[in-house]
Amino acid sequence: MIYLDHNATTPPAPGVVQAMLSVLTDVWGNASSQHPRGQQAKRALAAARATVSRRLGCKPAEVIFTSGATEANHLAVLGLHAAAGCERRRIVFSAVEHAGHLALARALETQGVPVDFIGVNPDGTLDLDSAARLIGTDVALVSLMAVNNETGVRMPVDEVRALAHAAGARLHVDATQFIGKVPFDFARFGADAVSLSAHKLRGPKGIGALLLRQGSTLVPQMQGSQERRRRGGTENLPAIVGFAAALDRLGDIETEASRVAELRDTLERELQRALPDMHVFSACAPRVAGTSYLRFGLLPADVVLQRMEQLGVSASSGAACSSGGSEPSHVLAAMGVPRDEALAAVRLSLGETTTARDIDYLMAALPPLLAPLLGTCAAHAA
Amino acid sequence: MIYLDHNATTPPAPGVVQAMLSVLTDVWGNASSQHPRGQQAKRALAAARATVSRRLGCKPAEVIFTSGATEANHLAVLGLHAAAGCERRRIVFSAVEHAGHLALARALETQGVPVDFIGVNPDGTLDLDSAARLIGTDVALVSLMAVNNETGVRMPVDEVRALAHAAGARLHVDATQFIGKVPFDFARFGADAVSLSAHKLRGPKGIGALLLRQGSTLVPQMQGSQERRRRGGTENLPAIVGFAAALDRLGDIETEASRVAELRDTLERELQRALPDMHVFSACAPRVAGTSYLRFGLLPADVVLQRMEQLGVSASSGAACSSGGSEPSHVLAAMGVPRDEALAAVRLSLGETTTARDIDYLMAALPPLLAPLLGTCAAHAA
Repeated sequence: MIYLDHNATTPPAPGVVQAMLSVLTDVWGNASSQHPRGQQAKRALAAARATVSRRLGCKPAEVIFTSGATEANHLAVLGLHAAAGCERRRIVFSAVEHAGHLALARALETQGVPVDFIGVNPDGTLDLDSAARLIGTDVALVSLMAVNNETGVRMPVDEVRALAHAAGARLHVDATQFIGKVPFDFARFGADAVSLSAHKLRGPKGIGALLLRQGSTLVPQMQGSQERRRRGGTENLPAIVGFAAALDRLGDIETEASRVAELRDTLERELQRALPDMHVFSACAPRVAGTSYLRFGLLPADVVLQRMEQLGVSASSGAACSSGGSEPSHVLAAMGVPRDEALAAVRLSLGETTTARDIDYLMAALPPLLAPLLGTCAAHAA
Repeated sequence: MIYLDHNATTPPAPGVVQAMLSVLTDVWGNASSQHPRGQQAKRALAAARATVSRRLGCKPAEVIFTSGATEANHLAVLGLHAAAGCERRRIVFSAVEHAGHLALARALETQGVPVDFIGVNPDGTLDLDSAARLIGTDVALVSLMAVNNETGVRMPVDEVRALAHAAGARLHVDATQFIGKVPFDFARFGADAVSLSAHKLRGPKGIGALLLRQGSTLVPQMQGSQERRRRGGTENLPAIVGFAAALDRLGDIETEASRVAELRDTLERELQRALPDMHVFSACAPRVAGTSYLRFGLLPADVVLQRMEQLGVSASSGAACSSGGSEPSHVLAAMGVPRDEALAAVRLSLGETTTARDIDYLMAALPPLLAPLLGTCAAHAA
């Protein structure tokens, strides 16, 4: 099986599984207990937190472990908004945030919180003019993803941070699709809070973190003594240790990103050559390595995905969380892509386990299957 | 090492670890993905949900997986309160809820939500007169633990349910210390919502559930398409499968409870015989098997725990989550126990891994260490 859905999730690395197994078997104490078994767990927690903070360029006390990026995103938005006080009530999101995050924005709106959405350009990049207009002095918080999960487009975090801070607002960045793909250092990143998830970088599911800049105050959303009273609940030590192992095993991120970008670019170029009706969304925008969001003429995504499945290739029609629906992607809608083109969108997301052989196979095998459906000659197929 | 802190956490059972390992290795897809790897994960999720619901006597759709009991408790209280509308605003808790849950109550109070606390009697049982006075027609929700985590006292869920439902209020029960120790069937239990945690019953940390009665509406606290839109975030499949395995391996709960109760009763009786200054809190109240909350005269808890540590026995001075502090237990304070007696309280919590040999050893070895400190003759020690 060739797995090209790394933006949805990634296989836990063997070293990650091994680290979790040893915690599940041997370090199962409650890290809040005072006896030796509890203290053993507490030390393992401190070591994992040290690893995570070292790999992410933050202080150990800046890491708040959560059950994943969704919880981290909620904690950041609700917690920073509640801490902002009464004069600053407005929250500004981008229009292309993750579906769950936009659902939070809409829920806040129905509760009477003023909410705005920064639009995107036709290529999927953020509309900075729109950002500048919307980020005023009544804004408590700007919440922006670092990389769009569908298009792979990188968002202008530095520019938006400058706008937010000039207006006296906080900046939260959902870096779930960024960390592990682009070198990241929290100290230099400049956002006040950053969310991430372990399972997007070969760690386990059920664990993530909110990095919170020292000095930033945030109202906890789950009460309890853990995580310096910022996130209650018994610490999920096996997953935290797995998360640390996943970050610790990352090699040189730029080298790996170059390898994956080259595979992605080759794939796009060769498919384009074989199937001229193919179109890549956001092709000319700054994208992370590995993500390719494309359509083959107006062939419905499910037809393309079914042919890929015949070839043993797994991909998706957008975010996993909404891929069960038949509505076109809200990301493509925000880019102004017509409905019929959006319903043809297929996302291929390459990752660490993707090989040149996988890509060669797909480049060779897919065009002959799609060409007849497109009414195109597939003679140029590799 | 003899582990007598099962109320804090329990060792994951080998079959649980094995089940998780196989998911981490082989079923790592995102359960929301449409491709075969996602559908494999989706099937594993459905199977685990079916097991959990069968073992807990509820419908699969009544299970909302969460990151643990703390999240489940927050979801129940915040979600049911928000769904109750404007006329019913009051929330009634017991005064002896878990510290994190009481912190939630206080946080709600500072936000202007009217909150009341049902007191307890000197033996740790719930004051039902106080409950009857407080549960009026302005109450949205009553939130009560089924078993106190420190004393092991069982709370009168049926009586409180009758009071709550007569007043038109919902009942949420935190059954974290109940399920696995007492036979449980959600259909018969009668509460509208029930929280539980896997790691208290030899499952993994980082996973729990809120059981929500069909027809009850609840406002989600984390947005997203998962768990029928009631709890967003990629499903933590390895932990969910481990949770199901932990429930599935439970043998006859009553038989095991009898075994553990007999060990606990023997321990209390023999320690009492050897050290007449020993006092057991809530000794005559209905308690779950396994929990023994006691003091040796006024010997400070840390002195007793240190002697137990010398013997290789792990216990605690109360809930793990607050055992780092030097404040007396809020549970004992609510029972009217004087401060000096409360600071002497030590909790021994037995569980499935506890053997008669462990208890024999402790009964023989502890009195000689404590007797000199108490100025008592330890000649009667077994």
